[in-house]
Amino acid sequence: MDNQLIEKQEEVEEVLESSLPVEDKELKDPYCDADNPVQVKFEDISAAAYKIKGGVQHTPCTKSQMSQLFGMDMYFKKEFLQFTGSFKERGARYTLLALTKEQKKKGVIAASAGNHALALAYHGNNLGISVTVVMPIVAPIMKVSACRNHGAKVIVHGKDISESKDYAMHMSRDQDLIYINGYDHPNILAGQGTMGLEIIEQVPDLDACVIPVGGGGLIAGTALAIKSLHPKVTIIGVEIERCASFTAALEAGKPVYTTTSSSIADGLAVPTVGVNAFFTARHLIDKMVVVQEESIALAILRLIELEKAVVEGAGAVGLAAIMQGLLPELAGKKVVVALCGGNIDTTALGRVIERGLAADGRLVRFIVTVSDRPGGIAELAKVISDLGVSIKDIFHERAWLKSDIFSVQVKCVVETRDQAHSKELEDALRSQYKKVIMGLDYF
Amino acid sequence: MDNQLIEKQEEVEEVLESSLPVEDKELKDPYCDADNPVQVKFEDISAAAYKIKGGVQHTPCTKSQMSQLFGMDMYFKKEFLQFTGSFKERGARYTLLALTKEQKKKGVIAASAGNHALALAYHGNNLGISVTVVMPIVAPIMKVSACRNHGAKVIVHGKDISESKDYAMHMSRDQDLIYINGYDHPNILAGQGTMGLEIIEQVPDLDACVIPVGGGGLIAGTALAIKSLHPKVTIIGVEIERCASFTAALEAGKPVYTTTSSSIADGLAVPTVGVNAFFTARHLIDKMVVVQEESIALAILRLIELEKAVVEGAGAVGLAAIMQGLLPELAGKKVVVALCGGNIDTTALGRVIERGLAADGRLVRFIVTVSDRPGGIAELAKVISDLGVSIKDIFHERAWLKSDIFSVQVKCVVETRDQAHSKELEDALRSQYKKVIMGLDYF
Repeated sequence: MDNQLIEKQEEVEEVLESSLPVEDKELKDPYCDADNPVQVKFEDISAAAYKIKGGVQHTPCTKSQMSQLFGMDMYFKKEFLQFTGSFKERGARYTLLALTKEQKKKGVIAASAGNHALALAYHGNNLGISVTVVMPIVAPIMKVSACRNHGAKVIVHGKDISESKDYAMHMSRDQDLIYINGYDHPNILAGQGTMGLEIIEQVPDLDACVIPVGGGGLIAGTALAIKSLHPKVTIIGVEIERCASFTAALEAGKPVYTTTSSSIADGLAVPTVGVNAFFTARHLIDKMVVVQEESIALAILRLIELEKAVVEGAGAVGLAAIMQGLLPELAGKKVVVALCGGNIDTTALGRVIERGLAADGRLVRFIVTVSDRPGGIAELAKVISDLGVSIKDIFHERAWLKSDIFSVQVKCVVETRDQAHSKELEDALRSQYKKVIMGLDYF
Repeated sequence: MDNQLIEKQEEVEEVLESSLPVEDKELKDPYCDADNPVQVKFEDISAAAYKIKGGVQHTPCTKSQMSQLFGMDMYFKKEFLQFTGSFKERGARYTLLALTKEQKKKGVIAASAGNHALALAYHGNNLGISVTVVMPIVAPIMKVSACRNHGAKVIVHGKDISESKDYAMHMSRDQDLIYINGYDHPNILAGQGTMGLEIIEQVPDLDACVIPVGGGGLIAGTALAIKSLHPKVTIIGVEIERCASFTAALEAGKPVYTTTSSSIADGLAVPTVGVNAFFTARHLIDKMVVVQEESIALAILRLIELEKAVVEGAGAVGLAAIMQGLLPELAGKKVVVALCGGNIDTTALGRVIERGLAADGRLVRFIVTVSDRPGGIAELAKVISDLGVSIKDIFHERAWLKSDIFSVQVKCVVETRDQAHSKELEDALRSQYKKVIMGLDYF
């Protein structure tokens, strides 16, 4: 999987710096203090569950077709079906509800280019609480306007999220607004934990739960909820190879800065995990694994094909870990995999599909040498179309052919129904033409 | 929208003939008799609801982000989230459950290349009833193997569904198996009606319900369920322009054969609607509209982008009708739109996305004339990449340039973030190069 899959490298790179300490001591976030981490309690999650009820979707958690394929009883918790497309609404709504009357009147502020901004904007509007979101200039126009449509004050400021956060922290101090960290505010963790309560209710006898890990907020809340009720359930965290910051924190015994590179799962590219998240979750996680980009892309494709689910990279890492063979101990078990967000850019999705079709042998490339007499190309086109194969691209390269001046080389990209159909095409071409080169590597 | 969007024209064309009367009188389907149509009753639907409970998903019916966009309170009934990807499971399960003990022992048979086959196979397996499915040779391998994986006997026979049906009817007679028509068996209609009961439960104060119409089974059951409980709810049926067979039946007062052409919503291409479906539904439908291919493709794209939903063409026609402006009377109303299936071919989905990006101004094509000195192309590539625009295809056409032998013409296809980003690219190119041709029409 090359970097072309990543659309907005800038957007990822800025996320990488978002957790770096803000120099100005005055601008320290009082709710996320490395010297005094808060350990969230089960009571916070159960309170959140009652408070957000009716305001946030009770998303389905249903058995997957893929159960047979992977030899386990596999359930997907479909958080990508939340109104704004991610689990972030749970924590956002609870944090807004838990503000004092006075704080509610003043309003809140956050810096985000993604799901946290959308969640706050939507629920702030719903609850009549003023929300200001600082978004970096690289934030997609669609998300900026979605936040505005939800009634948030959107300030586009900063070349990356680090600059946006700095600006938001200053505004927070100057205008006395509560700054809400999207993966570490204690009430955010409590809110995310409600996903765990729903999972227990929907699949009471689960053996294991697989959860994506970025800043750590979702796994902290969910692991606490599940382990409090069913201590024997195995909790597995999944990080991206390109940003294994929770694994690094577990080794160091505290959150540490981790180098990162761009990923299709940009939502997980948080180089330093949250302090509250870390100290809440560290003893509740049974296993951490890291997944590769290629597996994430394939997981996104399989979710589209088999689950009819549009899931973003960050939301698909749980399935990616299973597809990559990292969790053999789950064979025969009842497993819930959290699909936590769906806000993937359509461009990236198009690329994932294209690569997936090629990997499945349904997007086929070949070179064939045909006669240069009039009708040579038409004949080839007929051979192809007679099989019901559709031509996507066709290149005609008379000038570059060395072997024979009475022939032309034609490069084709075609779409077939499946591998058997591709084989049928290959056989037809080989019986008709002497020189046929099949495969991807010749382009 | 040209025909390239349609992957398997053969598959569509065979569906077109599927409802033609079978010549052999002996092979008449006793459950779907044009001379003695059955009018399904509300009691049949309520019975089905209790019987299929627990065996079929109670799918979400949630408010959409698109409400604001279309000026109505819009809810989507997400039937594409059923285990096998469509509402067909409701009728299939109920019909299987309603068989006599003896019939259950003998088993059932059907002809289908799609959702009905998957639904029967899955529920037959689940209920221990032998299911035989006759699928035409053009049926996608993935669906054939999915049916086999669900334990069905799959016979691949017939160049089209008409031949498959004929074969299945003969087998039905010879082996004493019950033939189950997927859109007209009375119990199929009753089962599909359970979707209507769920809608009433989930959105009790709805003003209107928009339902896709192919053979008519879904709208017959659903309209009956809804009108029986809330007679004032407006029922709107949506057909494809390329097969408006229900509209034709309403005009004729009975099902009539209608000419058809291939469509992205192949599941709706039924040239003669079901007799039981028609006589059950005809007085319950307030309005019928027909949608164009272009609207269906755009609806699929918007569902992916805004709802995180993978919906097949047949499932997206309700939204297409609203996007096409055919239902202005729904402004300000509470409307439920049924998204009834998700089994779209990944190849077709890839094309829908690609066209959608082009329509949104995010897939941009242009021709620029650059210097033929070494580095001319590299310089162009730098202008493009400096803006964060990614190159998808680049063609270098020295040989065909007429104007100037010291220049080369380069054709590019690039991906941008949004329209503003595309404009930025155009400005940069125009300030750097004299000859720039932007747009789709030059290729």
